Amino acid sequence: MATFLSPTYSSNPHLPFGDQHTAPFYGKDILSVKQFSRGSLDYTFAVAHEMRVMVERVGTFDLLKGKILTNLFYEPSTRTSSSFTSAMERLGGSVIPINEVHYSSVAKGESLPDTVRSLECYADVIVLRHPEIGSAALAAQYARKPIINAGDGVGEHPTQALLDLFTIVEELGQVDGLTVTMLGDLKYGRTVHSLARLLSLYNVKLNYVSPEILRLPSEIVEEIGQKNIPQAEYTTLEPVLAQTDVLYVTRVQKERFTDQAVYESVRGAYVITPEIMQQAKERMIVMHPLPRVGEISMAFDDDPRAAYFRQMEYGLYVRMALLAMVLGKA
Amino acid sequence: MATFLSPTYSSNPHLPFGDQHTAPFYGKDILSVKQFSRGSLDYTFAVAHEMRVMVERVGTFDLLKGKILTNLFYEPSTRTSSSFTSAMERLGGSVIPINEVHYSSVAKGESLPDTVRSLECYADVIVLRHPEIGSAALAAQYARKPIINAGDGVGEHPTQALLDLFTIVEELGQVDGLTVTMLGDLKYGRTVHSLARLLSLYNVKLNYVSPEILRLPSEIVEEIGQKNIPQAEYTTLEPVLAQTDVLYVTRVQKERFTDQAVYESVRGAYVITPEIMQQAKERMIVMHPLPRVGEISMAFDDDPRAAYFRQMEYGLYVRMALLAMVLGKA
Amino acid sequence: MATFLSPTYSSNPHLPFGDQHTAPFYGKDILSVKQFSRGSLDYTFAVAHEMRVMVERVGTFDLLKGKILTNLFYEPSTRTSSSFTSAMERLGGSVIPINEVHYSSVAKGESLPDTVRSLECYADVIVLRHPEIGSAALAAQYARKPIINAGDGVGEHPTQALLDLFTIVEELGQVDGLTVTMLGDLKYGRTVHSLARLLSLYNVKLNYVSPEILRLPSEIVEEIGQKNIPQAEYTTLEPVLAQTDVLYVTRVQKERFTDQAVYESVRGAYVITPEIMQQAKERMIVMHPLPRVGEISMAFDDDPRAAYFRQMEYGLYVRMALLAMVLGKA
Repeated sequence: MATFLSPTYSSNPHLPFGDQHTAPFYGKDILSVKQFSRGSLDYTFAVAHEMRVMVERVGTFDLLKGKILTNLFYEPSTRTSSSFTSAMERLGGSVIPINEVHYSSVAKGESLPDTVRSLECYADVIVLRHPEIGSAALAAQYARKPIINAGDGVGEHPTQALLDLFTIVEELGQVDGLTVTMLGDLKYGRTVHSLARLLSLYNVKLNYVSPEILRLPSEIVEEIGQKNIPQAEYTTLEPVLAQTDVLYVTRVQKERFTDQAVYESVRGAYVITPEIMQQAKERMIVMHPLPRVGEISMAFDDDPRAAYFRQMEYGLYVRMALLAMVLGKA
Repeated sequence: MATFLSPTYSSNPHLPFGDQHTAPFYGKDILSVKQFSRGSLDYTFAVAHEMRVMVERVGTFDLLKGKILTNLFYEPSTRTSSSFTSAMERLGGSVIPINEVHYSSVAKGESLPDTVRSLECYADVIVLRHPEIGSAALAAQYARKPIINAGDGVGEHPTQALLDLFTIVEELGQVDGLTVTMLGDLKYGRTVHSLARLLSLYNVKLNYVSPEILRLPSEIVEEIGQKNIPQAEYTTLEPVLAQTDVLYVTRVQKERFTDQAVYESVRGAYVITPEIMQQAKERMIVMHPLPRVGEISMAFDDDPRAAYFRQMEYGLYVRMALLAMVLGKA
Repeated sequence: MATFLSPTYSSNPHLPFGDQHTAPFYGKDILSVKQFSRGSLDYTFAVAHEMRVMVERVGTFDLLKGKILTNLFYEPSTRTSSSFTSAMERLGGSVIPINEVHYSSVAKGESLPDTVRSLECYADVIVLRHPEIGSAALAAQYARKPIINAGDGVGEHPTQALLDLFTIVEELGQVDGLTVTMLGDLKYGRTVHSLARLLSLYNVKLNYVSPEILRLPSEIVEEIGQKNIPQAEYTTLEPVLAQTDVLYVTRVQKERFTDQAVYESVRGAYVITPEIMQQAKERMIVMHPLPRVGEISMAFDDDPRAAYFRQMEYGLYVRMALLAMVLGKA
């Protein structure tokens, strides 16, 4: 469904959670972080927190019993797919896993709108992963059932950004007042772009630490700057580590480099180790969207500030919340 | 199980639905449309209609709770596989999806009878898709559990033919008296052959519209002719469109042509557009087994006569009915 | 979890089943047959037998309702994967199937410990199939959730060995006093090695029948010899068939031979036929881990002594038992 959340929705974020908050999500698509105001983030995270409490207490419960999710993945993403599958199963629902879409009707030339309209009668909600930007919005334009964007190429991956923000909320209690430092590949990192946009809804300070060739795109810096968020760029972590509350580490992906010599020169430049982390606060967290390939030393994994595996778990709760919300059961 | 429905079954199609109708399906295989008489079609569609009502009312219900379906697909078919998965889940049952059979035991040289006998202990019913004709019958010969044929190469795909016929019944109320026009590739189209055979059980008029090289095989024309069904062949749609109640469009598949120049010359010859459809009745339906690749203009999709996406949904109800019937729960 | 069963556990195998038997399995990993004493085997098989009774009586029951299994398969194994899926579903639990791990995070260079720690938050127990020896133990070292080893390359496949032994117990009533003859590829056959080790906990007589180049490795012969188990090696079946209670046939795998001429010379040397089996006892069983490719004639399949398809079914009960045990519900 293509209709975004009503803009009047975010104008009243301080009302107690009720119809004015839940109704806008029921039957809606989740396509972009731009759909979320502070009010709807508060609501989403409140639901996600309830999901966490319920999972810790009873593991699984029947909120979505009888509901079916189609996991329509045009490219493999074990982690995201598994997370949505688990979210649906922990809510008592069922899943239709579709990972072979390449070999089948699509290979015969079928369009995405046709595939979605064919498959939607089997499910109550569709999670879509597709390599092309705008594909989730295109699918939503034709589908009668809610579409949740699980990554559309270089476009968006809103549930990743939401789980990143939820991790900060759950681990540190709030977002306002925090200093968030983003490290690594800030040019191509879709997760970093979406998270930065979401963070700009709060009173935060943003530091960007990257090699010169992997700086955050200027349009994003400008967009965030318009919201009066203090931003600063660095090429080394040292100047900002001590003041950082959230260190968001990203992988420098080999496939982003045409010149492999350049890749080799930067790949090891921002490795987080227990030694380096001695300069950081005692109460702060290190995040990573995973998978990592050496950006964070395994020797740091047992440090309580290492939040990256817990981050995966917060993703489960956020996805449970979103499924319940679009199906009108939150 | 290899035993077909008892021939005495079809001799009494007007009895109220009861044991004489349900018993023959319980524990049986669904291998071919040839197993179906008008009586058993009536029964199947009555169950499928009940499934539709239940899905529309409650979404999912526990008729097959605790039952397990193995979806054994030797070749990918996202749509058919998803449809059976959804059917089983909407009935409260579970699914074992097997799509990787190529890489595994079969690659080690295991025979189909061994694979089926190995896997059947894990499930209550097996849906089999296999590229070779006769494979479903072979599997059924060895299996103790019911086998449902989901396509055996150039052989049969009975649940597709059943859902096609059920679509006609649900959309137009009855089959007797209708004029059904089949368009496109009538030579290689397995779905067209099976549907034509099923339609010959009713008082219908059949029109075949195709390029010369893709005419309906003469043995099928003869088989249907023996039942005194009026049949007529055309190379253009124009002469028959106005009198058509059901227009069944099929895809002209590129892979059927050795000479690509011939393919290019015919592919665009039978495209359905809103303009062409102005000549058709107001109350008629356009069907397509999907996927389509241009045979029907997307501009026609919003026309109420465009039944091809609803057709997918009718497939869900037919498969729910068949699963319930072979498991003795209809 | 890396902690093996306490060695004190096996010292008291004759106590009635109770906490001293169940507690050691709760939350534990199943990595190797070496974890099992006669006492814990007795317990496991008692639970597996209960599972058999329940499945025969009601098909499916809700012992593990709300629990989620992640089936993490780095290499395809349709049979093992399906068996665990069915086991979980027959117990009312759910499954997250992961078969595409190659194409995803792992392809990006993620380590097994990271993959396991990322995925474990979605499930309550992980079944792991991996091509490298020691991988299950490595995963268990990092995971908080129980790991069940479903094959780690040339390492172990403990649930296969357990189901083999359970088959003997269920079919013949006991293990002590039996003569077990192993036939075929005894050098590379992982299942044979594990089964021989388990059998050495009982008072059995072991015969090994193989081509010279596929003899049981001497270290295994020595290990078993230290337990005073009578062992004898043969190159033909004839001298031992008449006295055999369990004939365990294995496939001579083509891929084990560098010289295909040698493979061709031995592949047909140990084929079981109805004629040969006339020399065997009336009450004995023929087993095979499957798939077979001609080592047992299909003409023998209907003989009541042919236990190989029933063996698959016993695997279901053993895996149900193990899942229930590690999740504390046995």
